[in-house]
Amino acid sequence: MEKRIGFIGLGNMGINIAKNLINAGYHLQVYNRTLSKANELDPAYTTPCKTPADAASGVHIVITMLTDDEVLKEITLGDQGILEGLPEHALHISMSTVSPETAEQLAALHNEAGSHYLAAPVFGRPEAAEARKLWICVSGDQHAKDTAKPVLDCLGQGIIDFGEATGGANVIKIAGNFMIMASMEMMAEAFTLAEKNGLDRAQVAGFFGSTLFNAPIFQNYGKLIAGKQYEPVGFKSKLGYKDARLAFKLSQASETPMPLVNALHSRLLTAVAKGRGDTDWIEGISRGVSEDAGV
Amino acid sequence: MEKRIGFIGLGNMGINIAKNLINAGYHLQVYNRTLSKANELDPAYTTPCKTPADAASGVHIVITMLTDDEVLKEITLGDQGILEGLPEHALHISMSTVSPETAEQLAALHNEAGSHYLAAPVFGRPEAAEARKLWICVSGDQHAKDTAKPVLDCLGQGIIDFGEATGGANVIKIAGNFMIMASMEMMAEAFTLAEKNGLDRAQVAGFFGSTLFNAPIFQNYGKLIAGKQYEPVGFKSKLGYKDARLAFKLSQASETPMPLVNALHSRLLTAVAKGRGDTDWIEGISRGVSEDAGV
Repeated sequence: MEKRIGFIGLGNMGINIAKNLINAGYHLQVYNRTLSKANELDPAYTTPCKTPADAASGVHIVITMLTDDEVLKEITLGDQGILEGLPEHALHISMSTVSPETAEQLAALHNEAGSHYLAAPVFGRPEAAEARKLWICVSGDQHAKDTAKPVLDCLGQGIIDFGEATGGANVIKIAGNFMIMASMEMMAEAFTLAEKNGLDRAQVAGFFGSTLFNAPIFQNYGKLIAGKQYEPVGFKSKLGYKDARLAFKLSQASETPMPLVNALHSRLLTAVAKGRGDTDWIEGISRGVSEDAGV
Repeated sequence: MEKRIGFIGLGNMGINIAKNLINAGYHLQVYNRTLSKANELDPAYTTPCKTPADAASGVHIVITMLTDDEVLKEITLGDQGILEGLPEHALHISMSTVSPETAEQLAALHNEAGSHYLAAPVFGRPEAAEARKLWICVSGDQHAKDTAKPVLDCLGQGIIDFGEATGGANVIKIAGNFMIMASMEMMAEAFTLAEKNGLDRAQVAGFFGSTLFNAPIFQNYGKLIAGKQYEPVGFKSKLGYKDARLAFKLSQASETPMPLVNALHSRLLTAVAKGRGDTDWIEGISRGVSEDAGV
């Protein structure tokens, strides 16, 4: 097996994924907008590159973990982008949260260039990435999945196949992030209702998290929301807003009225408008609910 | 210990609770609007009564499990109501889902009459009541809780104390039913989004229910929502609508803006308006989302 792969995007998620790949014995050709971030990686297993094309050059797999659709398109299609460097028959594993539309567009352009694209967005915060506890959703052709499997096996606790259509995994990722945001909003509303009626937020969160809602989302986020504990920042409100926009856009494109998406879009847009784009999305949502209620 | 108690309200929940009390050795003085329902109970342990006052007569505890605030008030305060029959110092355990305002009003009137009131609403569908798996939330004075404990211990898997203020447990029950409804709405929206984008609803529900959302609510309701399986009817849409109204009213009374409550109030009101008040609330919510999306 070829142990040299390209890796692009060393944000909170990417840096942890890159470290696990190195731990698994891969040598990474790394590109990042701020290249100094690559100094956190073992230099014996890292080749810093000046362009995405360089990072993709001569490898059979290049992985991207980027902020949004626009950045992914620029990195892939732009001047000195992935498509200019990636060898024929090689595979682009795209782990970013982007629209299925972008995934389909990039898959088509890879196809024209003789290379391949696999949608592989993930569920899990940076700690989960570090602990190799990501859930990795994939969609695309079987050959691409087979090629990606040994690499993805180093990164998560499970790979879930959402079919042959390119954008299937992106739909799941968008639906899932919507469900996480809706869960935070519902907890923030319920706990604030309880607070304003004289109850202890922590007791309320503890009760629901240990009975009806005994899932990690409700236990972990519930504790933070109940305690109004918004640091450290794991996932930013402006990225939550981006995901709310992706859900909104997908609901429009597929003609699926989603009242809760509308409510969350407003909530996150408000957080951004109030200058809280760089706070954790838990704060973006929960503080918004509290402020609306005057507490 | 006195093993004869009053029991009022033999609906889907009440009948199962009454059976468990009889299994635990209690003799019940039973009142129900449709008294023939009492025929389902062991006659050796059942005394059917013609009025709530008769059911409450001579006992140290009377339990009510009724549809809504209005019925509970009528049964307690009306002609031949509980307050006319219940002995001094006796306890009214009120398990219905009602507003904290009603609970406080009834507690005050019990107090004037020399008797006691304990709010003890429960979480769990009829199957959970039958299996003694209810979560019972209590609030009120300590003496009332101590008196109620041996009886409540026969009915659930846990008793959770939400303080001395009469209505605390009612607030939790309203907040919890709101969270359950919001969970159903968000799953229905997410699964419908996935469906309209070419994915299999069952696979989506299975994935979330076994990973991020691995709690019974998401597993059990998720499976039914994914399969659009709306029968048998366990909890009716018109009762869900009542609970949405209770949440709406409480959010107003306590000045807690709750956008998701607004959305759910509309959803359930629509179900009732379309003649689906007697369907399961899963249908009231999920079918509404599907219909809006034209599927």
